[in-house]
Amino acid sequence: MELAEMKKSELEQFYKQTKEEYENYKAKGLSLNMARGKPSAEQLDLTEGLLSAVKSNKDCYAEDGTDCRNYGIVDGIAEAKKIFAPMLGVSEKEIMVLGNSSLTIMYDNIAKFMVFGTGNGAEPWGIQARDKKLKWLCPVPGYDRHFLITEKFGFEMINIPTDENGPNMDMIEKLVAEDDSIKGVWCVPMYANPTGITFSDEVVRRFAQMKTAANDFRIFWDNAYCIHHLNDTPDKLLNLLEEAKKAGNEDRVLMYGSTSKVTYPGAGVAVFGASEANIAYIRSLMTVQSIGPDKLNQLRHVKFFKTFDGITEHMKKHAALIEPRFKAVLDELDREIAPLGIAKWTKPNGGYFISFDAMKGCAKRICQLCKEAGVILTGAGATFPYGNDPDDSNIRIAPTYPPIEELELAARIFALSVKIAACEKLGA
Amino acid sequence: MELAEMKKSELEQFYKQTKEEYENYKAKGLSLNMARGKPSAEQLDLTEGLLSAVKSNKDCYAEDGTDCRNYGIVDGIAEAKKIFAPMLGVSEKEIMVLGNSSLTIMYDNIAKFMVFGTGNGAEPWGIQARDKKLKWLCPVPGYDRHFLITEKFGFEMINIPTDENGPNMDMIEKLVAEDDSIKGVWCVPMYANPTGITFSDEVVRRFAQMKTAANDFRIFWDNAYCIHHLNDTPDKLLNLLEEAKKAGNEDRVLMYGSTSKVTYPGAGVAVFGASEANIAYIRSLMTVQSIGPDKLNQLRHVKFFKTFDGITEHMKKHAALIEPRFKAVLDELDREIAPLGIAKWTKPNGGYFISFDAMKGCAKRICQLCKEAGVILTGAGATFPYGNDPDDSNIRIAPTYPPIEELELAARIFALSVKIAACEKLGA
Repeated sequence: MELAEMKKSELEQFYKQTKEEYENYKAKGLSLNMARGKPSAEQLDLTEGLLSAVKSNKDCYAEDGTDCRNYGIVDGIAEAKKIFAPMLGVSEKEIMVLGNSSLTIMYDNIAKFMVFGTGNGAEPWGIQARDKKLKWLCPVPGYDRHFLITEKFGFEMINIPTDENGPNMDMIEKLVAEDDSIKGVWCVPMYANPTGITFSDEVVRRFAQMKTAANDFRIFWDNAYCIHHLNDTPDKLLNLLEEAKKAGNEDRVLMYGSTSKVTYPGAGVAVFGASEANIAYIRSLMTVQSIGPDKLNQLRHVKFFKTFDGITEHMKKHAALIEPRFKAVLDELDREIAPLGIAKWTKPNGGYFISFDAMKGCAKRICQLCKEAGVILTGAGATFPYGNDPDDSNIRIAPTYPPIEELELAARIFALSVKIAACEKLGA
Repeated sequence: MELAEMKKSELEQFYKQTKEEYENYKAKGLSLNMARGKPSAEQLDLTEGLLSAVKSNKDCYAEDGTDCRNYGIVDGIAEAKKIFAPMLGVSEKEIMVLGNSSLTIMYDNIAKFMVFGTGNGAEPWGIQARDKKLKWLCPVPGYDRHFLITEKFGFEMINIPTDENGPNMDMIEKLVAEDDSIKGVWCVPMYANPTGITFSDEVVRRFAQMKTAANDFRIFWDNAYCIHHLNDTPDKLLNLLEEAKKAGNEDRVLMYGSTSKVTYPGAGVAVFGASEANIAYIRSLMTVQSIGPDKLNQLRHVKFFKTFDGITEHMKKHAALIEPRFKAVLDELDREIAPLGIAKWTKPNGGYFISFDAMKGCAKRICQLCKEAGVILTGAGATFPYGNDPDDSNIRIAPTYPPIEELELAARIFALSVKIAACEKLGA
């Protein structure tokens, strides 16, 4: 029976029972964590071969004879470009292979656009910001670390609602056509953080084709989960750069990816894909900033994976470890919450998150109840700019990191907390 | 006999002989390089053990249990701080251990100061630059990549002459006391690039104590060669941060170092040392930019070196390979050029360079002659801001990279080119 259809007495009884069960768990003094999208130690163990992929002096040379131990090659070694280009769906002329963090590349690109401009003649964003507040589009719910970057750089962030097809493109098209102070949009187009949805072909095409008042508008296309499938029915994402080329808008596209959740979050490689013009511009700025990324770590990745197929095969091993964790949480929610009609959540085919929408006004309370019972969640609101979820409804569940027994326990406590918050909301 | 004392006929005869010898070398079609301060392959081979210092899953954990493969720790692992803190002469609370390039940290710090300010309440440099041209002090001759960064960020660079004690502090003190548009100074305080000199105690103290009109003036103390001694009579450098603390000026000091010339230029670790206030400020900005540096590579360094003493012992192996290369060049210069009285050069106790001052107006000609005979040097002028050596005199010789036989040949051709240019200058 749905909770909203219960009589007052039924609701009170349900609340009392649930609270008792919750208190029993709370008394255990647990310490469980479903907060961050981190690979588990089991997943990291899959990559052990990477550690010794370059183990002697003679292993340190690239195919063209470059000594990867020494200075040089600001945009990555050729064979690394070759195996990672298919990951982003770009050519080897449209990719840079860099350090250990795509987030850092995004931050640095925005910093460069602030100080030097986007390279097409438009004034640096920092100069434009003298006269008007610059703005940024933020599909919500989204990735807290994206929002933190644009907040720090002083952009006014505008929430864009999303559904199962991606962001609301009617709204985006209208805004960017009218307002030249809007300089960019954050997108996680595949297995989005946190919703798990993949942008539809139509959404991708509209991003590629839309008219923008600002000639220096940029799409930050963080394709962090592009090969992170969970099952045999993966989503498919249209290639934004190719679609943008057809419309003559290729310079608005900046694509990012990394091996943070392929090899190691702390010691992987990150990639940047863009039009040849954008690559040339960013490279020209980077030659002042860097004498080159860690080429030896790039070589490790090349020797470990050999080909792009080697990477996608490796991802199946990750899926085998992650899929049961998603299932553990989803089963609990299906069994305990679905019949009550008090929440919605996503069942993604990939990525790292389940996005959970509680009844309005309940997310903070749920996180508080979980915390008091020893379960850490990403803070309510974190999936919105400024940490402000206007509905106080969305919670990001990250099931990958904990051991599965802990996860089952955490999911149980989460479900109890959802029930309690809903009862309270309904007047119990 | 000194060249200037020769009769016209003697000079002509000397010129003719030298030119003949030069042409013989030129006819060989050589390809030699004394341009960049790069370690040789032999030096890089010294560090082979680093490659397998972390080779299995169980090796990947820091002393405190941190899994170095996963996300986290934005400012470096504790044991890396411990072994590198003595290198900069700071405490473990005054250091960050980061990625593979100190140059990148310097660039990023300036970028942050442009956009966000230095953290002491002064306006961001980018905002201040609206109303006045900002300036930067550049001891010359100096490091071309330093100058390129401040040029790119739009600073007007002011040349500061240096002697064997360091930069001209009378000039610096006067300038910074009067002009609050001067925001910083580049320093390579030990075995300077390219002069090889080490700043005297007095110079360091005056940097620490001087009054600056700008409250956001910063000393970029690039201590790239602090442990890069060539012999048993190393220079000693006073600790700038400690001296600055005594004067209450510790926040003006930003110190940099790396293992680029200790382990690998392409795959080492870089360190940043500063007051606790500066470290806290930069860390607060970096938490938005990065989820942490490559901790696994830090762990490799820790396991390979074990202690700071392990690092300094390792440097002796480098010295054993580099010192003969310096000697090869210096011997040639002492034998061939010294008697002629047409140039001066440095004989450093460490570092990577010999700084050569030819007769005024001869540097470009010497580099041209060398190039035509197949010897690549750092371009004349590169050691000055904007590539402009007003005397056209200074040439940076980098003897570390070529095999010693090639180096001897290159030094021979260099000496011949110096003689030819001097003869031409004297009217031959």
